[in-house]
Amino acid sequence: MACIDCPTPSLSRLATQASPSIIRELLKLAGQPDVISFAGGLPSPAGFPVDEIKAAADFIMEKQGRSALQYSLTEGELALRDYIAKRETENGVPTTRDEVQIVSGSQQALDLIARAFIDEGSRVLVESPTYLGALQAFRMCSPVFEELPTDDKGLNPDAIGPEARGARFAYVMPTFANPTGLTIDEGRRERLAQKARELDLWLIEDDPYGELWYDQAPPKSLRAFAPERTLRLGTLSKVLAPGFRLGYICGPKHVLNVFTHMKQAIDLHTATFTQQIAAKVMNDGLLDTHIPHVRALYKNQCQAMLDALEEFMPKHPDIAWTKPKGGMFIWMRLPQYIDSTELMKEALEKKVAFVPGSAFYANEVQAWHARLSFVTVPPERIRQGVKALAEVVAAHIR
Amino acid sequence: MACIDCPTPSLSRLATQASPSIIRELLKLAGQPDVISFAGGLPSPAGFPVDEIKAAADFIMEKQGRSALQYSLTEGELALRDYIAKRETENGVPTTRDEVQIVSGSQQALDLIARAFIDEGSRVLVESPTYLGALQAFRMCSPVFEELPTDDKGLNPDAIGPEARGARFAYVMPTFANPTGLTIDEGRRERLAQKARELDLWLIEDDPYGELWYDQAPPKSLRAFAPERTLRLGTLSKVLAPGFRLGYICGPKHVLNVFTHMKQAIDLHTATFTQQIAAKVMNDGLLDTHIPHVRALYKNQCQAMLDALEEFMPKHPDIAWTKPKGGMFIWMRLPQYIDSTELMKEALEKKVAFVPGSAFYANEVQAWHARLSFVTVPPERIRQGVKALAEVVAAHIR
Repeated sequence: MACIDCPTPSLSRLATQASPSIIRELLKLAGQPDVISFAGGLPSPAGFPVDEIKAAADFIMEKQGRSALQYSLTEGELALRDYIAKRETENGVPTTRDEVQIVSGSQQALDLIARAFIDEGSRVLVESPTYLGALQAFRMCSPVFEELPTDDKGLNPDAIGPEARGARFAYVMPTFANPTGLTIDEGRRERLAQKARELDLWLIEDDPYGELWYDQAPPKSLRAFAPERTLRLGTLSKVLAPGFRLGYICGPKHVLNVFTHMKQAIDLHTATFTQQIAAKVMNDGLLDTHIPHVRALYKNQCQAMLDALEEFMPKHPDIAWTKPKGGMFIWMRLPQYIDSTELMKEALEKKVAFVPGSAFYANEVQAWHARLSFVTVPPERIRQGVKALAEVVAAHIR
Repeated sequence: MACIDCPTPSLSRLATQASPSIIRELLKLAGQPDVISFAGGLPSPAGFPVDEIKAAADFIMEKQGRSALQYSLTEGELALRDYIAKRETENGVPTTRDEVQIVSGSQQALDLIARAFIDEGSRVLVESPTYLGALQAFRMCSPVFEELPTDDKGLNPDAIGPEARGARFAYVMPTFANPTGLTIDEGRRERLAQKARELDLWLIEDDPYGELWYDQAPPKSLRAFAPERTLRLGTLSKVLAPGFRLGYICGPKHVLNVFTHMKQAIDLHTATFTQQIAAKVMNDGLLDTHIPHVRALYKNQCQAMLDALEEFMPKHPDIAWTKPKGGMFIWMRLPQYIDSTELMKEALEKKVAFVPGSAFYANEVQAWHARLSFVTVPPERIRQGVKALAEVVAAHIR
């Protein structure tokens, strides 16, 4: 309850726009312990390399404690940037440490991109649906969103017309996308890069999930096809630990310089301590031994959800879902007369939760979708939750 | 050198404003190992509690490793907010955890305040001189700065006239200020609070140095005199470790809610891992045993600098410096015909560095000042550096 006699400051236009969200309120309920939640975007803590990180923290504090506790460079710790540059290079894009900017989680990369590129009314191209957190960050700078053409294989570069020219950038998640789980193939990546050159577009490639493939690595990164005009966003949240809040931007140095300059006024730099620990465990080779376990865990749970959907969901021409080859999400389509925010309220009564699809649209909302995450729920609970959800859906079918 | 053929994105107006700074270029030179630098705002690593932090990191990873590596609340970890609330309460302002927002260093608090309160052209009141990092953060939102009246005792509330009404906030550093080292007394704090009520002004109390007193604790915080309209910024960078990037804002919950909402889109939350470690060491009582060592170290080095200034600086009616009772900085005034940015270039040739005063003014620059920090330089090097600086100054005296 607001305090009636309390003085209230005059807020900026930006702060006034920030309004409470129905979906956020519903998601709070999804966190209750008796709810089977397919709503989370959190990685499974079962996959956290606790012992290895403890050993690395010990090592860092013994060998370089004073440096780990001191201020650091705004660009990020050298050892961490070197490691990321090496990995990018191994993955097909020759990269130096000067082409890596460390950020406080990739959400901060989205904020930096918004502030560096968007003026009020600037045109920004996004997929439809697209990542909710990117929409939140970009909206703080009041752009006008335009939707990139997509089909059931994801973003379709061949359908991008000349009217895209002049947009500040195109924000895309080409690999195991949030929320759809879809991946665009190598041909589409190549043609998207070509189209970006033709139309003088900058590409923001957000890739939090690329390492989380199940049977086969995804195609080369979009950045590999247009390194001169792509900013590639990565994160350690999904492969190491979200609690470190470490992400990065790879791209041309003359653009990263803009971010570095702004970040100095925004938060000086990202925590030295966590950067040094992350660099240590990764330089010791942890990702190569660790990520396969995460992949196996998620693959198993993804399959459990696909099996349960097949078993329990009503057979109906308008009910379908994506079959991801990696990542954390399945995207479900329902008949257009179903509003998934309303559905969520009923699902919560049955102690199951998901994220209503309407949150993921920049402009025209397709409310008949739902995002289902399988990563934090064990298989038997997935089955139980999908069964409950299917009953709620079935009750809505006309 | 810029790449000539590289594509360049269209930058936002904000990013275009960010221009290279002469002072920043000079400060890079100040970091060379053979330079005696009085330019830094870094705490002395000699004061870092490395062993205690290592033990706490071990404890956290053993007892609650999975939680320490997971996503956390945007408001901040409960244990850390509880500790800060307790300390604020002990210091005279009853505070609950809901009145504490954790931020990624107090620089982020300045950014949040800028974005929450400043529209283009909004009036913001600052001291003259004031903290450089605050000017950087606020300028990103294009305010119009107005200067608060000050005298040789710091901010003078009695001289604030009715024209201050309507400003979005007054940003003040009442205790061991950066750059002046000055502290306003209890009477001025009380009258400033009273003036803020009369004029319906919000106060931003930035207090990074309050714990670093030498012989006597400073007066009660400004927030104690006007808790209903003060946002108090604190940091663990000066008392624990800057490499953690942990700061906080204390204030009315209905205002903190605005920050929480924005922070969700900016960087989700501050690192869980460092928050849990900081909460552990502080709840174990580290600050009470640790801060006295930092105080003694800085007091000794401050005295060494004051002694050296007395011994070496030319006697001249226009040369004077502040005599801080705590904190990290001495502020030196020179004859008005001396431009301290020019002086810095010559000082660097003599292998001594400081921060030119012009960096600390929002509007009318008083270039004949210099900020001297004594915290990272041992006493004998302080003497040597001040001697060299005094020779450079002497050569400019007409």
